Amino acid sequence: MNIVLEISYVGLNYFGYQIQPNKKTVQGELENAIKKVLGYDVKTIASGRTDANVSAIKQVVNFNCDKINIPVDRLKYVLNEVLPLDIRVNRSYLADDNFNARFNAKTKTYEYYFYYGDVENAYYSQNYQFFKGNLDIENMKKACSLLVGEHDFKSFVASDTDVKSTVREIYNADIIKVDSSINCYKLVISGNGFLYNMVRIIMGTLLDIGYQKHDFKYMEFVIKQKNRKFAGPTVDAIGLVLKNVEY
Amino acid sequence: MNIVLEISYVGLNYFGYQIQPNKKTVQGELENAIKKVLGYDVKTIASGRTDANVSAIKQVVNFNCDKINIPVDRLKYVLNEVLPLDIRVNRSYLADDNFNARFNAKTKTYEYYFYYGDVENAYYSQNYQFFKGNLDIENMKKACSLLVGEHDFKSFVASDTDVKSTVREIYNADIIKVDSSINCYKLVISGNGFLYNMVRIIMGTLLDIGYQKHDFKYMEFVIKQKNRKFAGPTVDAIGLVLKNVEY
Repeated sequence: MNIVLEISYVGLNYFGYQIQPNKKTVQGELENAIKKVLGYDVKTIASGRTDANVSAIKQVVNFNCDKINIPVDRLKYVLNEVLPLDIRVNRSYLADDNFNARFNAKTKTYEYYFYYGDVENAYYSQNYQFFKGNLDIENMKKACSLLVGEHDFKSFVASDTDVKSTVREIYNADIIKVDSSINCYKLVISGNGFLYNMVRIIMGTLLDIGYQKHDFKYMEFVIKQKNRKFAGPTVDAIGLVLKNVEY
Repeated sequence: MNIVLEISYVGLNYFGYQIQPNKKTVQGELENAIKKVLGYDVKTIASGRTDANVSAIKQVVNFNCDKINIPVDRLKYVLNEVLPLDIRVNRSYLADDNFNARFNAKTKTYEYYFYYGDVENAYYSQNYQFFKGNLDIENMKKACSLLVGEHDFKSFVASDTDVKSTVREIYNADIIKVDSSINCYKLVISGNGFLYNMVRIIMGTLLDIGYQKHDFKYMEFVIKQKNRKFAGPTVDAIGLVLKNVEY
């Protein structure tokens, strides 16, 4: 049986999604819970890993197992009984034998929550990244529109990765106001895939534009350079959320 | 000098706003911080207390003190140096001698964040209250509109309070969708004042209407009864936030 789980988690409490020896990871907790329920080890495949402090509203995972004696759509309840509260299985269902959560993912959507101002707000800082000073949101929005389309995002990848192709297609990128009374926003970005740290480096480049170090057209220039040194900083992971994975 | 502070805090970590012996409270931490900076005790006056687990995006506090040798608008930075990170002073300024954060408050706005569905989402459960099942949001919105105006809210006060008058004016009450991809909402309610547990009991009554135990007109009936037993349950404090106080 090929079982799919849609899960949510709070990134703050884990050393990232991917399993690591002697470290608390989301995958580690999930595989422990599955083992407790099924009685044997399984290897899970996620749509992709997320870094430490990155949360997920919807991450998708699949695994192969022998026939189970509970209805698959009720497996979520059984797993939630043994999982920590900061990891929840929101849906469990049966897929075709050839379904693979990683290779079959068509669209991923990330959100990066942030706000700006003079002093941090204790409430928002729980889940939003704070940027000191003022940001030119209109210019950041214009820069977002230049990300849409198929581009070589080599400028936006952590320098230590050795991925075959750095070409990705961005379907949508925009900055949306979340709260009217304070300067709270989210970058919403979706595409056919993201390179390691790509969303955080895009956000760092948008930040430089927001601080008016560059005009919004700088985004196009950075894409063309295919060189990490032209992009902005890798922003902190607090604020980054995997929102959705579509197949 | 009469100094006003606008503060934000995370309610989860405190036994409510109001100072209590041997308990961690927001007021206690704030008065400790002021004492560290000024060198002597002051008595602070807040717009009102908030219960354990209730956060504030903007709470307003004032206190009287001798002349200080730093500009008042910079006092926030000095206080933030000694305050825990989950309490922030967002603004500090000088007020008239007769300004009182409690008695001069004209409008208070609370938000109650909630979502509904089959299973909790780990990400949203950090700050939203989860209600199992389906809610009829349209009927809840209609019930909200019946709250607006000056009414005797005796049905919506914790039975153990002995307040002089239970008449309050609600300026605005509505349920707003926060996230399009999941059933995340917030009740936004503003008025000239709120009785003890009033927002949580209003939310509990809206919840009964959302679960279709009653029609939306039941809200009007409950107001007329002036009896706590007709209103819904006092919902949990997780999700409740003091959004704003205006003078």
